[in-house]
Amino acid sequence: MRSDLVGLKPYGAPHLDVPVQLNVNENAYPIPDVVVESMRSAVDGHFAGLNRYPDREFEDLRGHLVSYLDGVNRRAGGAVDLSPEMIWAGNGSNEVLSHIVQAFGGPGRTVLGFTPSYSMHPLIATGTGASWQSSARNDDFALDADAVGAEVADVDPDIVFLCTPNNPTGTSIGLDVIEAAYDNCSGIVIVDEAYAEFSRPARPSAMTLLAGRPRLVVSRTMSKAFACAGLRLGYAIAAPELIDVLRLVRLPYHLSDITQVLACTALEHADVLLDNVDRLIDSRDRISQHLRDVGFTVFPSDSNFVLFGNISSPQTLWQRLLDRGILIRDIGITHHARVNAGTEVETTAFLRAIDEILGEDPGILLPAG
Amino acid sequence: MRSDLVGLKPYGAPHLDVPVQLNVNENAYPIPDVVVESMRSAVDGHFAGLNRYPDREFEDLRGHLVSYLDGVNRRAGGAVDLSPEMIWAGNGSNEVLSHIVQAFGGPGRTVLGFTPSYSMHPLIATGTGASWQSSARNDDFALDADAVGAEVADVDPDIVFLCTPNNPTGTSIGLDVIEAAYDNCSGIVIVDEAYAEFSRPARPSAMTLLAGRPRLVVSRTMSKAFACAGLRLGYAIAAPELIDVLRLVRLPYHLSDITQVLACTALEHADVLLDNVDRLIDSRDRISQHLRDVGFTVFPSDSNFVLFGNISSPQTLWQRLLDRGILIRDIGITHHARVNAGTEVETTAFLRAIDEILGEDPGILLPAG
Repeated sequence: MRSDLVGLKPYGAPHLDVPVQLNVNENAYPIPDVVVESMRSAVDGHFAGLNRYPDREFEDLRGHLVSYLDGVNRRAGGAVDLSPEMIWAGNGSNEVLSHIVQAFGGPGRTVLGFTPSYSMHPLIATGTGASWQSSARNDDFALDADAVGAEVADVDPDIVFLCTPNNPTGTSIGLDVIEAAYDNCSGIVIVDEAYAEFSRPARPSAMTLLAGRPRLVVSRTMSKAFACAGLRLGYAIAAPELIDVLRLVRLPYHLSDITQVLACTALEHADVLLDNVDRLIDSRDRISQHLRDVGFTVFPSDSNFVLFGNISSPQTLWQRLLDRGILIRDIGITHHARVNAGTEVETTAFLRAIDEILGEDPGILLPAG
Repeated sequence: MRSDLVGLKPYGAPHLDVPVQLNVNENAYPIPDVVVESMRSAVDGHFAGLNRYPDREFEDLRGHLVSYLDGVNRRAGGAVDLSPEMIWAGNGSNEVLSHIVQAFGGPGRTVLGFTPSYSMHPLIATGTGASWQSSARNDDFALDADAVGAEVADVDPDIVFLCTPNNPTGTSIGLDVIEAAYDNCSGIVIVDEAYAEFSRPARPSAMTLLAGRPRLVVSRTMSKAFACAGLRLGYAIAAPELIDVLRLVRLPYHLSDITQVLACTALEHADVLLDNVDRLIDSRDRISQHLRDVGFTVFPSDSNFVLFGNISSPQTLWQRLLDRGILIRDIGITHHARVNAGTEVETTAFLRAIDEILGEDPGILLPAG
């Protein structure tokens, strides 16, 4: 095996079959019946023809993504002139990011990220043979344009990852930070907007910066707001010339016919699927407020999860919650843990469990001061 | 972009919407009604839960593949002791091969293949930064154990690709050739058996060599005999220790829930789906016989396609067939072309078109001698 793989463990949160799963940033709500019914009808005509390869260029899906994103940008007050040749898609945004890094990274190239952030970014970068360099965020996990611009200028990376809202911190960055990263390097700037639909009020997407920036890529996913984690569909938006290069590294026919048709169906029902986003935001805000009230530190979240700190031992808290059938994520940041916004019932169960655990063992909180 | 990508063109046969498509080695027969009905029922309960990530370890699918392969090996007279931890799967065998080469190839490593063979093998190898070395097959495209053993010993590759039945030649190799490759290197030996189900009588699979050979991998696909090209499901069989390493390079949740359940359904109906294999073999043999009768050279095929030679200009023949609504493949071998076994009707249309074209222009055949 490759020498740099020796001793590594496979990526992935522990999978445990418990009643309340608040650990992998899924959408807590199942696909609504009306969408299930449409999915059923949509695939029906696609089984018989599975003997044929799928559309290698997923043209119908590209069209559907353009329509959806046009609405997103319009509602956020920043119309963007998008076209199908500006769209890429893959089996999850991990695959999309992987295509980008395969095309523009590789041995001898440097990829820069601002950590803590999505832990797959460095794995995807080093998987292509590129070297990963991380710049630590400050104590409140925020990023500002001056600091990012200076760091990017200093490292001069071939690829920069920016994640907003950022996983696992939930924090967003302004467009000025993205501009600063772009202006201070000659490499590709990837803005991972996996959780963008959970920002309220809607922030303008990095898509609004695409005009005149041929090195900028915005990635998104249907795994979160669209509740389609099981379907595996991520996508990216960039200048047609950049998207065209990705065709050189993708494996042909990477998206199944069924994936394409189901993703189109979900996009046609964007309004119904995104209805649950408001409920998840309510849960998230309830969690933030309650955790703050009982003494944890809480970071402002624009996503469907909450990072909270001031925990004496995240491992202990994780285990005590698990004992009560609730799974959260120990993301490896000292004194911090991450919890997803659940359904109303799941959120209530989590907050009750927190109160019980604190009642039994106030030492879960770090001593004040 | 990566400097080695500059000037490359994306992989893929020209996609043209014509009545008779005999160019990408698909199964010419649609999924039978009884299987369509089972697929419909099987996915029905999976739409609502798409908000959750799929089984990262595709355990149910692994079990189904073991059951299918047990039958394959039993019928070929060589039982193999398989278990779920010896199985890997991906979105098409390209992804499976890619995982293997990512794990065991990479910069500074050498991958050896015997060409002409499947043209994705070198693309997958160099995509990881490994260097590709090809050894030319002799004039009849056969391989023998002594020559392969000597070549492997000489190159000392980190990975060897052997493809049997070989695409695009249709020719098979004996198990002795695989043993010779294995015994003469310390690297991974990949046997690509994408077309194995089209061999009649069934040849023992390279799986029968797995015991005591921890560096051997056999890859297969559901795109061909199973008529599931549109579903994207390839798989591999190897020692558990080798399979386990692939978990380090795969992107988490790479197989959608829908892909997993539909692949299981197809495997449950293996007998029905593989019924059409006999018909395709009849078509293949009809094509081979007819092309030989009218003056082309024809290579013995164990697959669902036929490589034929003695063509003055494959490009001209390709165009003349296309003018009649028939698409074959110009695979870039001088004076040769490849055609798939179609349905009975498609095969008749192709053979009639060949007769017409030869009637109009006997110069399509190279002069005798």
